[in-house]
Amino acid sequence: MSETERLTESVKELLGGGRDERLAGLLENAHAADISSVLRELPLPDQVRLFRLLSSQHAGEVLSELDDPTQRELLRALDEQEVSRVLDQMPADDVVEVVEELPKEEAEKILDLMAEEKSEEVQELLEYREGTAGRLMSPNVVAVHEAATVAQAIEHIRKSKSGDDAFYVYVVDDHDHLVGFVPLHRLLTADPRTPIHAIRNADVESVAVDTDQEEVARLVERYDLVQVPVVDASRRLLGAIGVDDVIDIIHEEATEDIQRLGGVAGDETVLDPPEAVFTKRLVWRLINLGTAVLAASVIGLFESSIRSLALLAVFMPIVASMGGIGTTQTATVVVRGIALGEVSRPVLGRVLWKELWLGLTTGAANGLVIAAIAYLWKGQILLSLILGVALLFNMLVAAVVGTLVPIALKAFRIDPAIASSVIITTFTDVFGFFSFLGLATVLIRFLL
Amino acid sequence: MSETERLTESVKELLGGGRDERLAGLLENAHAADISSVLRELPLPDQVRLFRLLSSQHAGEVLSELDDPTQRELLRALDEQEVSRVLDQMPADDVVEVVEELPKEEAEKILDLMAEEKSEEVQELLEYREGTAGRLMSPNVVAVHEAATVAQAIEHIRKSKSGDDAFYVYVVDDHDHLVGFVPLHRLLTADPRTPIHAIRNADVESVAVDTDQEEVARLVERYDLVQVPVVDASRRLLGAIGVDDVIDIIHEEATEDIQRLGGVAGDETVLDPPEAVFTKRLVWRLINLGTAVLAASVIGLFESSIRSLALLAVFMPIVASMGGIGTTQTATVVVRGIALGEVSRPVLGRVLWKELWLGLTTGAANGLVIAAIAYLWKGQILLSLILGVALLFNMLVAAVVGTLVPIALKAFRIDPAIASSVIITTFTDVFGFFSFLGLATVLIRFLL
Repeated sequence: MSETERLTESVKELLGGGRDERLAGLLENAHAADISSVLRELPLPDQVRLFRLLSSQHAGEVLSELDDPTQRELLRALDEQEVSRVLDQMPADDVVEVVEELPKEEAEKILDLMAEEKSEEVQELLEYREGTAGRLMSPNVVAVHEAATVAQAIEHIRKSKSGDDAFYVYVVDDHDHLVGFVPLHRLLTADPRTPIHAIRNADVESVAVDTDQEEVARLVERYDLVQVPVVDASRRLLGAIGVDDVIDIIHEEATEDIQRLGGVAGDETVLDPPEAVFTKRLVWRLINLGTAVLAASVIGLFESSIRSLALLAVFMPIVASMGGIGTTQTATVVVRGIALGEVSRPVLGRVLWKELWLGLTTGAANGLVIAAIAYLWKGQILLSLILGVALLFNMLVAAVVGTLVPIALKAFRIDPAIASSVIITTFTDVFGFFSFLGLATVLIRFLL
Repeated sequence: MSETERLTESVKELLGGGRDERLAGLLENAHAADISSVLRELPLPDQVRLFRLLSSQHAGEVLSELDDPTQRELLRALDEQEVSRVLDQMPADDVVEVVEELPKEEAEKILDLMAEEKSEEVQELLEYREGTAGRLMSPNVVAVHEAATVAQAIEHIRKSKSGDDAFYVYVVDDHDHLVGFVPLHRLLTADPRTPIHAIRNADVESVAVDTDQEEVARLVERYDLVQVPVVDASRRLLGAIGVDDVIDIIHEEATEDIQRLGGVAGDETVLDPPEAVFTKRLVWRLINLGTAVLAASVIGLFESSIRSLALLAVFMPIVASMGGIGTTQTATVVVRGIALGEVSRPVLGRVLWKELWLGLTTGAANGLVIAAIAYLWKGQILLSLILGVALLFNMLVAAVVGTLVPIALKAFRIDPAIASSVIITTFTDVFGFFSFLGLATVLIRFLL
């Protein structure tokens, strides 16, 4: 049984007995992440009851860990005084995440009730655009002047607000420009009289405050950072982003890619209320309906051939389906490659060549197999050959479409994952029906 | 222009001129991650030339950053003496990652040539199963006895091998059992005479040495850790895993899910040589060919209906295609939900209910739209209604299949992403053809 499951069982037992004191004790020792998992599975009144048993500090941590829908519901059930007291105890960047999910009026009321200093910090962060480094950063970083000594830096750390999750001291010059960093490990092992500039690492990776969060994540991954400082246009230090926030971004981006490839909005969770996602799901289904009608209209062109040879209708979907798997496989690999930054201009030719090679070889293999199956099944040698050839053609189309559509989207700054199977398989559906039925129609006098 | 692009240009310029000294200087100041990106784009002889210009320490860092195919090629081009000298300078866990990619004989030869102490460390790590905490951990952690003072702990850190990326000191008892940890920040701000046990955090998250890497990643994410200690069965401290390795795992797992959902092996990259992935791609295409033949054989049952009413063949793929998008959307959300740990037993009912609700509502909407389109296009009211009803049915089948297949796979400990569109859309292909053509066949005397 996991930590969370154990906690859930104990909480449910104690909730029934109404023993709030023992509940409070149990929660006090539990990790915020586990408590948030427990809350998610309880009815709202129990959520409120448990939440009120937490200390303000702990309540803030739990609030940060909750998923958006649960958080919204819980906050609506609490009164604003209560919420503002909890937010006061949270780091400003975590407060931002909570406040940005609330309706504007409610958010303003709560900010008014909060301690002035914290509220101002939060409002400053809220001025940066969503999805940028400014929105994500925590303003609580330790910065020391390059002329300070190690002993002075340590004294400064002692007085600062930053806590156990500070791993670096940032070094600034007279004008607050970021000029380096010192890992705490190095500070700990240095002579106290050493000047900071002598032990600082001048090669400090930083991000501009308006950098897109995806870019931030890529930098952190690339250089194996635990925290990345955020600077303004003139390199003045504003705050820092921790790797835990970066992991959340990586998850969000991966979810977005997976879902968009599957024709879903990109931020849906399994427990979203169905009404909330109805429109988004419907849009993709309507797009798909449109592309299906397009494919159907191609078949419509060949209605008279099908009337004279109904067998064509039987084999028809095989060509389309194989084009579908071809484009999907290719686009999946290419979209993921783009997300991981592996697809740069110099390698485009190699990527396309690889896919064409695979389209040709697997297309030939599949074409032979299906021709053989069709011949054994229906005994029509010419029709079987047409089927095999149409399938091979379609695999080559799949290779080209699956590679170039995502790359073209990326070039136009559109998310390549939007090239979901819904869109790109339309090409191979249409081309597949056209080549198979077209070839058959031209040769129909030999087929009948 | 990014750091990497700038570096690539400068390197290419200098490579032409043969000015190895200036090249060495350029590389010395570049980050290993950037150098590895540059190497990937150069022909092998240039890779070898650049690599030999690096200091052993830097060469090791670059080697760790290279993707597997490039790393293998480069190592094959270097002699074993050279490789072992570079590996000597790398942390043991990074050496493990390199060595496990090599053919067994070559790996043994290189390990023999390495410094004895490092080679033994590496061999110990290699004894843990791939994909477990033991394989990932670095044995270089700082551990102090709980009775030590802060001053003694700092002295110990000074003497230890661990460097700037040490963020915690682990606390152990007389028998080397892990009993807590102290963030360096706290060590820095504490009185030197304080005993460690007074400031340690006893609530330390750790993983057992045989824990699966996915589980390790989930723990690190859940509790926002920067490093997680690894212990043996009796809680003795063996090493620690850094968050940078965890980010790599998160990426790997996301790639696996995305690719498997798209009918690809799970570890393919855009630049893999096509011959290397031929078989894996072909397998999925052959499976798809099999399911397409299955769907075709359902159509075959109704060949005579199609002969009398060729219009059926035109509309047929619309029902199948809409079932396809339905299953794909549902399965995508469910598979991602499972990966993020959001699908637990108590919520299964809610997930299924959500999908059924969406299948019913969007199915009804789509059914009406397609019935209207079909009527306007071909003027056959009854056929249009049959089309609409078959589409609605198929959407409900899609909801059930898309939800239950991934959940069932998970229950049998099979990767739910294997429920790729190739497999699950077969259900809706078959059911779609069956319901549409079946209904039409039953009612055909009214249709003609």
